[in-house]
Amino acid sequence: MANETKSSHAAANAKMEKIVSLCKRRGFIFQSSEIYGGLNGAWDYGPVGVELKRNIKDYWWRRIVQLRDDVVGMDGSILMNRAVWKASGHEVTFHDPMVDCKVCKRRFRADQLETCECGKDPKKTPLTCGSELTAPRNFNLMFKTYVGPTEDDTSVAYLRPETAQAMFVQFKNVLEVARKKLPFGIAQIGKAFRNEINPRNFTFRSREFEQMELEFFVPPDQGLKWLEYWKDERLRWYEEIGIPRSKIHVLDVPADKRAHYSKGTYDLEYEFPFGVQELEGVAYRTDFDLKQHQEASGKPLEYFDEETRTKFIPHVVEPSAGVDRTLLAVLCEAFAEEEVKDDNGKTEVRTVLRFHPRVAPIKCGVFPLLKNKPELVAKAREVRDLLRPLMNVFYDEAGAIGRRYRRQDEVGTPYGVTIDFDTLGEKGPELKDTVTLRERDSMKQERIPIKDLHGWLLQRIN
Amino acid sequence: MANETKSSHAAANAKMEKIVSLCKRRGFIFQSSEIYGGLNGAWDYGPVGVELKRNIKDYWWRRIVQLRDDVVGMDGSILMNRAVWKASGHEVTFHDPMVDCKVCKRRFRADQLETCECGKDPKKTPLTCGSELTAPRNFNLMFKTYVGPTEDDTSVAYLRPETAQAMFVQFKNVLEVARKKLPFGIAQIGKAFRNEINPRNFTFRSREFEQMELEFFVPPDQGLKWLEYWKDERLRWYEEIGIPRSKIHVLDVPADKRAHYSKGTYDLEYEFPFGVQELEGVAYRTDFDLKQHQEASGKPLEYFDEETRTKFIPHVVEPSAGVDRTLLAVLCEAFAEEEVKDDNGKTEVRTVLRFHPRVAPIKCGVFPLLKNKPELVAKAREVRDLLRPLMNVFYDEAGAIGRRYRRQDEVGTPYGVTIDFDTLGEKGPELKDTVTLRERDSMKQERIPIKDLHGWLLQRIN
Repeated sequence: MANETKSSHAAANAKMEKIVSLCKRRGFIFQSSEIYGGLNGAWDYGPVGVELKRNIKDYWWRRIVQLRDDVVGMDGSILMNRAVWKASGHEVTFHDPMVDCKVCKRRFRADQLETCECGKDPKKTPLTCGSELTAPRNFNLMFKTYVGPTEDDTSVAYLRPETAQAMFVQFKNVLEVARKKLPFGIAQIGKAFRNEINPRNFTFRSREFEQMELEFFVPPDQGLKWLEYWKDERLRWYEEIGIPRSKIHVLDVPADKRAHYSKGTYDLEYEFPFGVQELEGVAYRTDFDLKQHQEASGKPLEYFDEETRTKFIPHVVEPSAGVDRTLLAVLCEAFAEEEVKDDNGKTEVRTVLRFHPRVAPIKCGVFPLLKNKPELVAKAREVRDLLRPLMNVFYDEAGAIGRRYRRQDEVGTPYGVTIDFDTLGEKGPELKDTVTLRERDSMKQERIPIKDLHGWLLQRIN
Repeated sequence: MANETKSSHAAANAKMEKIVSLCKRRGFIFQSSEIYGGLNGAWDYGPVGVELKRNIKDYWWRRIVQLRDDVVGMDGSILMNRAVWKASGHEVTFHDPMVDCKVCKRRFRADQLETCECGKDPKKTPLTCGSELTAPRNFNLMFKTYVGPTEDDTSVAYLRPETAQAMFVQFKNVLEVARKKLPFGIAQIGKAFRNEINPRNFTFRSREFEQMELEFFVPPDQGLKWLEYWKDERLRWYEEIGIPRSKIHVLDVPADKRAHYSKGTYDLEYEFPFGVQELEGVAYRTDFDLKQHQEASGKPLEYFDEETRTKFIPHVVEPSAGVDRTLLAVLCEAFAEEEVKDDNGKTEVRTVLRFHPRVAPIKCGVFPLLKNKPELVAKAREVRDLLRPLMNVFYDEAGAIGRRYRRQDEVGTPYGVTIDFDTLGEKGPELKDTVTLRERDSMKQERIPIKDLHGWLLQRIN
């Protein structure tokens, strides 16, 4: 391995470590059940993490469902009838080939050895601890449980490994109530579960995760056209939440790497510190899913086209995104460290999350300059109460104002307003009822009248 | 049973049947995996159901978390370390006593026979099919699964039966990042699972459901005070989403019916058509949960009070609400049938959901009077695009305008605007760019200028 590559790997690892540490320190992401040693592949979102996640999901929902006439939403259950997973093929084929190291006994996915934790290049050095691996064996990735009082084959159920199938099996119900013509889509956000052998890369590959999926139903001859449309649309969405087009690699998955039924798939991959990895798949799935369910259930899942007087099974284009992965990409993209001068002119490192204001957990910090001046505190609370119905604000009166700004920088709050003696009119009437507005990225400060504040902010955060 | 009671039972059943049928017909709630015969105790929310659910959850989040300085949110994983459920007591004690009928073999919760499906009064007639029951046996309500490649005792995990425990085990992490003083709370919305023997009453008792829980941490001597506070606060919240105070029964749970550690619990019960049933429990849980986890994990979960210089385990007041139950109560409360005259003066029955505009899935319908007049359609789309960034609107151009209004009545849309020839100025300039605004409940119509529309609506829907 060249020295250059080694040191860029080390830098990437160091960046990732800093992000993981910031996430815990400032309340974005904690290990699940941490006080009990955690649960591998499960994560909890803390106070700012949950707001960031909500913003990402809400913006997806708004753009994909609410701002369109041709998509409706649904929210299906995680536990479904087992027959769904037989028909979809998951019960038989949703598995990973596993290999075990014969000496160190660690278990790996046979197809992903290049990313195993030992970090060695499999092309050049022996794998893992250097010992032989077993032949691959299949391991189903669905979590199994039993529904009802008896534990036998008739009561088996799985935690859904994807949200997609609920939209296929409810296609007819939704079509009837939504009174839509093709092309039209069903969208859903929800948890899914996969019993990954090696959860890794922080929240990137976890056992419990959240998906945002759209099944877009089209006439059979329009699949490839809509595949392009949705690929472009989804790239635009990522840009709108602060992930630039230049950081996303579009992989046109070759036929031999696609699912057998797919006539075209794009993987949208992001340059994570730990490598270029999939954020979202946009797949033209043909009529495979509806056909499988029609056959297995005996219920017609066809569409009658009134214009052409023909009946057919719609084809499907599916943009399938991971909430946790998107959030992690947003975090990685936003993370920055920069040298700045402190109040005494000394150089120090500022950690800042440059979130797009649209997804930032907190839109505006509100600070009285001093907490022991009742007039400042009262005025600051007034400003807080003015803004709060319109956006998520954070009120903070503890510590030096510079430190309060830095704390908000670390959670990515784009704006901060400080209520000082000028606000109270102590330096004359012209500054009365104005506040200092500080911008996170430039750290520039300007004076703005309180009455203009909510308009100014609303323009920038939506 | 008196005749009066019988007929009121029949009316209640008929009402419930109508609600269930409306829910399916208009896309609020479907049976999960319906084309495969469903899965008992699991439900899917359709296009309007998911929006109603989002609105309920968002309003809870706004009021409990975002509009307060003393509560922060989190979002914990469904799968947690098994040790959590040992410490909380769920692994040993979270079970229902079951009895089986010795003849018909149906299984029931021994403590709930008065609500079993046979509908007979156990005090007066023999139970179920009239035959003897077995002695009660315990049945743990947690769904079990295995995490990782092996299925043995060391890999057991449960689907969480409540969201609460994540907030207890993350108490210290959250306290540190949130920099709050007591009293302060942690809030969470998420799925929970209980393997109920007899799921019933539509979505009321299901196996998969969603909770909105707040754990409010207070000094030991303030528990009872905050119990009162949160009981009142929660009653106010229900009123704000359209469930009047008069329909909620507050049950002060007597000591012998409370959990052993609780020093006070209020059950907030709603008058469902199938009986008065619990919507939410507001419980003063003392320091039980944190104490259990401190002991089991060996990690200190104490709070240091800077003012009194004392260290103690905080006490907890927990308002715990069910999303699906709240939604069902909102539906039941909103459901109405009334006799109205149609366009020809004939009496007909109008079905209407009188949702509070705040939770209504769609805030405003937008209709061109006729769909084959391009100017009407273009203008109507302009109005749709004007309103859409501010609220969820539904654009509909199909069918007679009266039928379109009725369809919106059935999904509870509070307002509808129609773009007609007057809007285009065909009857003179004074009506140009005005629309007909129709109010769902009164069915009154008025003319309103398009430019005033979004202000008028925003005032009423938030």
